[in-house]
Amino acid sequence: MGPVQVPADKYWGAQTQRSKENFTIGGQLMPTEVIRAFAILKKAAAQTNLELGVLSSDKAEIISKVCEEILDGKLDDQFPLVVWQTGSGTQSNMNVNEVIGNRAHVLLGGKLEDEKKKIHPNDDVNKSQSSNDTFPTAMSIAAYKLIVEETIPKVKSLRDTLDAKAKAFAEVVKIGRTHLMDATPLTLGNEFSGYVAQLDHGIKTLQSTLDHLSELALGGTAVGTGLNTPKGYSELVAKKISQLTGHPFKTAPNKFEALAAHDAAVGTSGALKKLAVSLMKIGNDIRLLASGPRCGIGELLIPENEPGSSIMPGKVNPTQSEALTMVCAQVIGNDAAISVGGMQGHFELNVFKPVIIFNLLMSAKLIGDAADSFNKNCAVGIEPNLPFINKNLENSLMLVTALNTHIGYENAAKIAKKAHKENKTLREAAIELQLLTDEQFTSWVNAKDMIGSLK
Amino acid sequence: MGPVQVPADKYWGAQTQRSKENFTIGGQLMPTEVIRAFAILKKAAAQTNLELGVLSSDKAEIISKVCEEILDGKLDDQFPLVVWQTGSGTQSNMNVNEVIGNRAHVLLGGKLEDEKKKIHPNDDVNKSQSSNDTFPTAMSIAAYKLIVEETIPKVKSLRDTLDAKAKAFAEVVKIGRTHLMDATPLTLGNEFSGYVAQLDHGIKTLQSTLDHLSELALGGTAVGTGLNTPKGYSELVAKKISQLTGHPFKTAPNKFEALAAHDAAVGTSGALKKLAVSLMKIGNDIRLLASGPRCGIGELLIPENEPGSSIMPGKVNPTQSEALTMVCAQVIGNDAAISVGGMQGHFELNVFKPVIIFNLLMSAKLIGDAADSFNKNCAVGIEPNLPFINKNLENSLMLVTALNTHIGYENAAKIAKKAHKENKTLREAAIELQLLTDEQFTSWVNAKDMIGSLK
Amino acid sequence: MGPVQVPADKYWGAQTQRSKENFTIGGQLMPTEVIRAFAILKKAAAQTNLELGVLSSDKAEIISKVCEEILDGKLDDQFPLVVWQTGSGTQSNMNVNEVIGNRAHVLLGGKLEDEKKKIHPNDDVNKSQSSNDTFPTAMSIAAYKLIVEETIPKVKSLRDTLDAKAKAFAEVVKIGRTHLMDATPLTLGNEFSGYVAQLDHGIKTLQSTLDHLSELALGGTAVGTGLNTPKGYSELVAKKISQLTGHPFKTAPNKFEALAAHDAAVGTSGALKKLAVSLMKIGNDIRLLASGPRCGIGELLIPENEPGSSIMPGKVNPTQSEALTMVCAQVIGNDAAISVGGMQGHFELNVFKPVIIFNLLMSAKLIGDAADSFNKNCAVGIEPNLPFINKNLENSLMLVTALNTHIGYENAAKIAKKAHKENKTLREAAIELQLLTDEQFTSWVNAKDMIGSLK
Amino acid sequence: MGPVQVPADKYWGAQTQRSKENFTIGGQLMPTEVIRAFAILKKAAAQTNLELGVLSSDKAEIISKVCEEILDGKLDDQFPLVVWQTGSGTQSNMNVNEVIGNRAHVLLGGKLEDEKKKIHPNDDVNKSQSSNDTFPTAMSIAAYKLIVEETIPKVKSLRDTLDAKAKAFAEVVKIGRTHLMDATPLTLGNEFSGYVAQLDHGIKTLQSTLDHLSELALGGTAVGTGLNTPKGYSELVAKKISQLTGHPFKTAPNKFEALAAHDAAVGTSGALKKLAVSLMKIGNDIRLLASGPRCGIGELLIPENEPGSSIMPGKVNPTQSEALTMVCAQVIGNDAAISVGGMQGHFELNVFKPVIIFNLLMSAKLIGDAADSFNKNCAVGIEPNLPFINKNLENSLMLVTALNTHIGYENAAKIAKKAHKENKTLREAAIELQLLTDEQFTSWVNAKDMIGSLK
Repeated sequence: MGPVQVPADKYWGAQTQRSKENFTIGGQLMPTEVIRAFAILKKAAAQTNLELGVLSSDKAEIISKVCEEILDGKLDDQFPLVVWQTGSGTQSNMNVNEVIGNRAHVLLGGKLEDEKKKIHPNDDVNKSQSSNDTFPTAMSIAAYKLIVEETIPKVKSLRDTLDAKAKAFAEVVKIGRTHLMDATPLTLGNEFSGYVAQLDHGIKTLQSTLDHLSELALGGTAVGTGLNTPKGYSELVAKKISQLTGHPFKTAPNKFEALAAHDAAVGTSGALKKLAVSLMKIGNDIRLLASGPRCGIGELLIPENEPGSSIMPGKVNPTQSEALTMVCAQVIGNDAAISVGGMQGHFELNVFKPVIIFNLLMSAKLIGDAADSFNKNCAVGIEPNLPFINKNLENSLMLVTALNTHIGYENAAKIAKKAHKENKTLREAAIELQLLTDEQFTSWVNAKDMIGSLK
Repeated sequence: MGPVQVPADKYWGAQTQRSKENFTIGGQLMPTEVIRAFAILKKAAAQTNLELGVLSSDKAEIISKVCEEILDGKLDDQFPLVVWQTGSGTQSNMNVNEVIGNRAHVLLGGKLEDEKKKIHPNDDVNKSQSSNDTFPTAMSIAAYKLIVEETIPKVKSLRDTLDAKAKAFAEVVKIGRTHLMDATPLTLGNEFSGYVAQLDHGIKTLQSTLDHLSELALGGTAVGTGLNTPKGYSELVAKKISQLTGHPFKTAPNKFEALAAHDAAVGTSGALKKLAVSLMKIGNDIRLLASGPRCGIGELLIPENEPGSSIMPGKVNPTQSEALTMVCAQVIGNDAAISVGGMQGHFELNVFKPVIIFNLLMSAKLIGDAADSFNKNCAVGIEPNLPFINKNLENSLMLVTALNTHIGYENAAKIAKKAHKENKTLREAAIELQLLTDEQFTSWVNAKDMIGSLK
Repeated sequence: MGPVQVPADKYWGAQTQRSKENFTIGGQLMPTEVIRAFAILKKAAAQTNLELGVLSSDKAEIISKVCEEILDGKLDDQFPLVVWQTGSGTQSNMNVNEVIGNRAHVLLGGKLEDEKKKIHPNDDVNKSQSSNDTFPTAMSIAAYKLIVEETIPKVKSLRDTLDAKAKAFAEVVKIGRTHLMDATPLTLGNEFSGYVAQLDHGIKTLQSTLDHLSELALGGTAVGTGLNTPKGYSELVAKKISQLTGHPFKTAPNKFEALAAHDAAVGTSGALKKLAVSLMKIGNDIRLLASGPRCGIGELLIPENEPGSSIMPGKVNPTQSEALTMVCAQVIGNDAAISVGGMQGHFELNVFKPVIIFNLLMSAKLIGDAADSFNKNCAVGIEPNLPFINKNLENSLMLVTALNTHIGYENAAKIAKKAHKENKTLREAAIELQLLTDEQFTSWVNAKDMIGSLK
Repeated sequence: MGPVQVPADKYWGAQTQRSKENFTIGGQLMPTEVIRAFAILKKAAAQTNLELGVLSSDKAEIISKVCEEILDGKLDDQFPLVVWQTGSGTQSNMNVNEVIGNRAHVLLGGKLEDEKKKIHPNDDVNKSQSSNDTFPTAMSIAAYKLIVEETIPKVKSLRDTLDAKAKAFAEVVKIGRTHLMDATPLTLGNEFSGYVAQLDHGIKTLQSTLDHLSELALGGTAVGTGLNTPKGYSELVAKKISQLTGHPFKTAPNKFEALAAHDAAVGTSGALKKLAVSLMKIGNDIRLLASGPRCGIGELLIPENEPGSSIMPGKVNPTQSEALTMVCAQVIGNDAAISVGGMQGHFELNVFKPVIIFNLLMSAKLIGDAADSFNKNCAVGIEPNLPFINKNLENSLMLVTALNTHIGYENAAKIAKKAHKENKTLREAAIELQLLTDEQFTSWVNAKDMIGSLK
């Protein structure tokens, strides 16, 4: 393979440098969340190795110290590798090992140019580990943390805002629409309650995937048998990772599955896709309801966060809906990429690990951020446009169904048809047809009475 | 494997029966188009074998005769195998061989229960062939024929209807909408011309995939080398298939690609997906423009083909748009299935052949049929709802941009904002602000002048 | 709309006939599972209407009787509508209403040609219902039943077979493979235990989606408000459906979500896709392990269910793996179609209902059937090919890692490199390098010792 | 909306800053390729405006100068907006307008803090333009350039390497494999020629999408009518863009399609997906053929670019195949995202522009880079592992088909079965069965004779 030159000011070593040179593809760096997750697991492994008597306390301490530096973001520029490397993520594991080893050496007073380092990247930092079990463990930690700490809380905040709106709009009676056509009335609160139910279900589905995701591969080493690990290692290292993160990680009961498949990621991505599908519906509804100002549906007012258009004054574009629904498109695409990667494990190893975690983290981040942005910059400011809502309700022919029980389906239909044909109100048509009186109309045709939830 | 019982009244043989018993999955039969394509290729192969001196004229003649029966639909109940069989489609190839052999034997005066048949399924019917080159050839023939004979003409008919509408609506000025918000005006003809351009591009893209699809694997036999075929066979059999079908099929210049990959199908499916994406936009636009009758956009009238709803009189649902867009969803899904199948060939053979052709034919059929149904039952009857179109145009604030060049962007914006805030017309706001006179407004603000294509 | 002619021997009516004529697309009929689910819900609705005093016992009884006939498959030829109809499924709801009404009329002694029927399709059969709440209810019932009664049991059977194999192969030591390259050893039982873990997780994920799927829309009527339903209807009808099916269905707490979105279907499809991804891995592994007979990996023997090839004797093709993995490709495609349909609900109604349930049922059926077929026709008969397994293990260079702890990483590497370069065994290379004795080699290099689970 | 603070050292203005604050989502910046494409079109627009007499030469000149700076990469840190913004890309258009305006003002001697600037972002820089026609134009330019200048040449280089290998390996006879099982022989050159044919088709398909992609929206302004553009503008600005880029761009014949749909991007992405499917097959084949070193197929040797594993000496992992196939998974996912975005245009504007171009550029870049990396770091160094190839060929039972024509199918099958059962060579089995002599075997069973292409 020949010699390789590492920049003098970098902590990484030959294996990292080789990967950097051999894979000049795309430019998407291994996500920071993965690097941080590696720092957690390397610290946990060092402490476990110490406790099980296979690593000295000096070494465990200095390794832990560098891991803390990584977690504090002090070494962010030391991880130059892209996603498109070896499919096991070995090169990123080695990148972490090399940086920890070399930085530890420097912290212990050594120099980067020393031939022999005080901390060995393989024998010390990677002790009781293999790329094949560390990378999937880092995947689990990174994804779990992001979803629990960011995605779910942010989606919940949006859910709470929509729930508050559902309650605030509980008495706002409006026309319903099915097939995009006028239908019987409901309240604006009803509509928003549907969005809340969607997000409640979506969050629940996402949460139901966490248990599989919490299973850590660490301890399986190269093929899942746990070769070269001390007794009790798997359980203890999982416990330490739980303590370091505050999340209920556990050792995977079956390490062969944990290395050879990423069905947990496939499942979690599927749940994020379900949320994307829900948010697409919500984002679309809100922009359609806010369409106008004069020639659309116009039943909602949304916050004006920026000038609508350089050429047209007075236009409030639903830009947050647009960002949200673009994110949903991305998450649906990412899910396809994850499925393709997930299905192609062979024997003891799935080698689509980096592309899977790249997409899973992107999806989790995007869903969280977009929900948050939509919440703060749009949802909180949504208000009913009562003049439009009431105008639509009054114009609607669909209230005629209220007459079914009074004058029969056939007569009600006659009124509706006449009103439709002659472009009149139902009241006008009804009276002209002499099917009921003005007073009867007022008494019988009342949108509020047609809404079960207000009865 | 043990003995197997074939029903006494069936022409198929043991290999077909075994597959029938071993693959009781799902119930989706191998598409008739594939069976018919097999009949074409078996006939062409028999005639080629005759011409190249490796099959007697008696045998070639009787084989051809049975192939004609298959093409006439007389033996439709003799092909009981499902899509979910061996991935090479071998079992359907054998089904065809057995049916042709046994039916030929009967036509020649034999009986189904005869131990020895006059026509051997392998030695005669399958002569100079292998499942590995016949099945992909049947795929090419079936897909090419369907697309050229049905899909493209049906999409073109829809395109022509939309083009006629674009011309008929060339003078119907209406409000434009961007971000679902009111924008500067255009004509309804402009909008429809966009749909026409989409379909023109879509058809062109679909046509551009036909060349790859026209490459026939036949002659490659088991692994692409053409083992056991007479000299000149590949070219001659392709020529015969061209003659029988009237389509410009040719022998694949590289048989290894033709057996081991189905990139042609992937490409054609991608083109069908592009059409699906276009038709989704068209179907969505039309149902949104036809939404109402009172509380939607209401600028289009679509034919009333069925009662809208059992509970609500007077509602015309955009059911053809719904069928069309559901088809588009299916075609997009089918494309994903084809990609997954297409990517997983190994060495000399891709063994996802049946699932690929099942989806490709479904997509081609659905796009054609849905375009046809939408055309006949919706598009031809679309009319502008002029009262709504004009009302929207007059109400719109966006015509204010016509004033930019007369009174400046800032003043125009003032007028628009006042009109918006006070729910007035632009004319009212302009005059109240004393920025221009009533006459000036009439003269300067004219939607027709804002449409380049009418200038 | 004009008159419409229904065939004299058919129970369906004008609305069905119109749909049949207006939607000649594709040919895929509305799945029987949906029709049967409609029969269940119509019966439950009739009995609920009776109990709540809005339908006479005579009518409830005869409606129930026809529903039983439908469930018994006696009226299968009365439901001619395709999937590609109105997106609410209204036409299939009316098909069911018309068939029940007309068949009831005949059972009560009437004639099909009678102008006035004793049972009215809308007023009686569809009482307290709307297409908008019945169709999604039928979707839920059909999918839930299929998954619980077929899909899960069949996948479980495969899981149990693989588990039995895992136990039977617990002592079969073999070479491991990562990156498709030779790795440290494990047992064949270990490999199979990974498959079992995959299916356990997949089944669990699928089960976790059932709760959302069990929420019934019935009682929401047209827009979710429950207009025109008697008090207590939703809860009671859900209870009756539970009793009729034996499954824990419940009324959807939020009917707006239940009509306007199909996130439950999206979630369930995502779980089926996760199973497809797992089964793809399993199917691929098994066919790769069984590859050969001479030039592949050859470590597994699979049952010979059919002749391998017409041209090549002695070849056992992995046809069940092929069918299984084709099914997986289809399920992944179906999931994409469901996502596209699921994301496009508008306001009070999602109008991609038929395409969603068509794909969901296809996926559930295919996963179940393919697991069953693979189980019975392949998995139960899988046996280790011990000569190949042992030969590979003995040839492998990877056992050299067992020497790391004895002679160090560097020396072990030297042995491996020499053996690799000179195409020798590790033993030969080790002794030639004088790094250890023959006895030491025998004592130290023992694949069994390298497998944690056997320690 | 209130005031907004722009950092003092930045050229961007209030609209950019607002977007930056309102869309803190994900972190994916608008791709540099889009920004550079904007610089090209802004320059072309300024020169067109000058030539058509609506912009002074001073202004045109200074605008062009700043555009050059952008193209030289001097202002890269002035474009802080993310992909997840308004779906029209308006904010990035304004970002470019503001940076050009302010930078021009400074170049002309002004100061950033001046209230009034010499160059107005809207009136000057954006003259005769709208976000709605500039953003899609930038999409077209960016994608076209990347594909023609990078993607296609890089894929072609890989194709040429594989073609050279196909020729170099033209005489290397090896066992064929279908269904992953041993089949009749072919040459290694045959196999590689299949890959070449795949890439030839893929490149051709990608090229066939360029014509649609070359259609520029510029000149359509806000809704496609070309409001506020001088006569002749569309054609002239397209000509200038062609001159600036050296690529045959043309004005879109239908601007409504060019704004409201992104079917061109959908089509191009479909072609990239077809290439991804091809490259997946190629990458998979090569890693399977190179599997081993002892327990795999082992017929290819691939370059050793990095140490295989920290725990196992002597292992050359197919890391370039892994990076390549991960890229393919991503491109397939990106295609799904683009389809979802592409299908959801409404009326005059598709507002999924940023997500579409983000994915399209990522796919084009990844396919190019991965092909290049695979080419340089793997394909050029692929060599046949002749001892393994020959051993497999000699062991194979499939050569028995060569005997069909000499001793008949049944006898040949007997030999193969005996050899298979007793683990003997064909020669041994044939002689023991006394079906032919040793000399006959040598003369009749010759793999080279079984390969049509060598006949």
